[in-house]
Amino acid sequence: MATQLGLALHNEGYLISQVYSRSQKNASILSKKLKAEAISDIKKLSSDSTIYIIAVKDDAIESVAKQLKLKDKIVIHTSGSVSMEVLQKSSKNYGAFYPLQTFSKEKQSNFKTIPICIEANNNNTSTTLQYFAKSISSNVKRVNSEQRKKIHLAAVFACNFSNHMYAIAEQLLAKDKLSLDLLKPLIEETANKIKENKPSKVQTGPAIRKDKNTMDAHLKMLSKEKDLKKMYELISKSIGISPLRSK
Amino acid sequence: MATQLGLALHNEGYLISQVYSRSQKNASILSKKLKAEAISDIKKLSSDSTIYIIAVKDDAIESVAKQLKLKDKIVIHTSGSVSMEVLQKSSKNYGAFYPLQTFSKEKQSNFKTIPICIEANNNNTSTTLQYFAKSISSNVKRVNSEQRKKIHLAAVFACNFSNHMYAIAEQLLAKDKLSLDLLKPLIEETANKIKENKPSKVQTGPAIRKDKNTMDAHLKMLSKEKDLKKMYELISKSIGISPLRSK
Repeated sequence: MATQLGLALHNEGYLISQVYSRSQKNASILSKKLKAEAISDIKKLSSDSTIYIIAVKDDAIESVAKQLKLKDKIVIHTSGSVSMEVLQKSSKNYGAFYPLQTFSKEKQSNFKTIPICIEANNNNTSTTLQYFAKSISSNVKRVNSEQRKKIHLAAVFACNFSNHMYAIAEQLLAKDKLSLDLLKPLIEETANKIKENKPSKVQTGPAIRKDKNTMDAHLKMLSKEKDLKKMYELISKSIGISPLRSK
Repeated sequence: MATQLGLALHNEGYLISQVYSRSQKNASILSKKLKAEAISDIKKLSSDSTIYIIAVKDDAIESVAKQLKLKDKIVIHTSGSVSMEVLQKSSKNYGAFYPLQTFSKEKQSNFKTIPICIEANNNNTSTTLQYFAKSISSNVKRVNSEQRKKIHLAAVFACNFSNHMYAIAEQLLAKDKLSLDLLKPLIEETANKIKENKPSKVQTGPAIRKDKNTMDAHLKMLSKEKDLKKMYELISKSIGISPLRSK
């Protein structure tokens, strides 16, 4: 996140003055890319920047925030799930800036297409964050805390859990010396289909057809893997429940 | 399936002599595209074709097969889950021809990239099916019954169930008047990532980080939706189990 957001801002012409990390080495790697100063002592943090971005792991945000006393400078974190109030002692103006994408250090992301959810503790900060976000993304949305957390929960289902479904498929195939490559075109098409269609409308498979024979055969194949069997039953049941389908 | 497979064969230069459907109208629609004869009376089925393809819903395969007496002509179905032995009274030579893709009547599929699993009751039939499949796809795999059924089960997880995860995300967002569009870049990237990486290696989210605070907050948000809560717990637990991760 820090790397990709830093690069997007740098490429857009923003001056990034400092990169802080507890590890001087990590600070240096990123600061070189951003033509910024690397610091590993948070006391060396300059006090005259406009925006301070805490782009660290969720469970480290609070401990970083506690070390900041930035008066009225804008302080933001980039998390979907952490409350923005963990920043309230860092500054009078704070918020969340949550880009909806997974990042890797190596692969440069195209921020223009990445939705960014913003939330702030007052209108002025919200407006500044909105301009800031719009300068790197064409899809910026003001949200409240409840919405941001709901989006994060939905992302866990749509992304973390769907990736785990791929992992289970891989594991099932590996036992018969088969490769997940066989399913990759199908996985790609499944993800592509929902660009233009509601997922509930394009659901396929035995559960939506109420094809009990096939489901029973599948449960038999999973009889030795209790957790997968339970998961199969639960997800199939959920697919079969009409409110989801009729939406 | 019938439409897309028919078109792929027709475009490859195969002569398709007849299209059978119980509905003369449906038979006509497809037969026109394939320059074939449309029949709705199965007794009019010619006996001098090389291969007979039963591309109907899984639970209709057996009843169609029962009406066929084709001596030694090759008879195949296109299902992932149905035993090929349902065809054994239709001919001495039979098998399964299972393209791993979801199809729609409207959108033409590029068969070249679609993996096709083939299975046959004897070597000669298997060899013929292999040539047949290779003429339209560059990814053909001979499988046995157990493997084909395992592939189908894996496809249910990787595709049907991942689509349902998208549907759940959509449902959760809709309650806060948010659109699934917010998550579409993330969903796309999640599916793209596994083209080059094992899914178990690129798993992200609270469960793999063992981030109990976030998981507890999510379970609280799901407290009124018992089935989703159970699903969240079960999938998170499965993500957290190390054998999957270390593979």
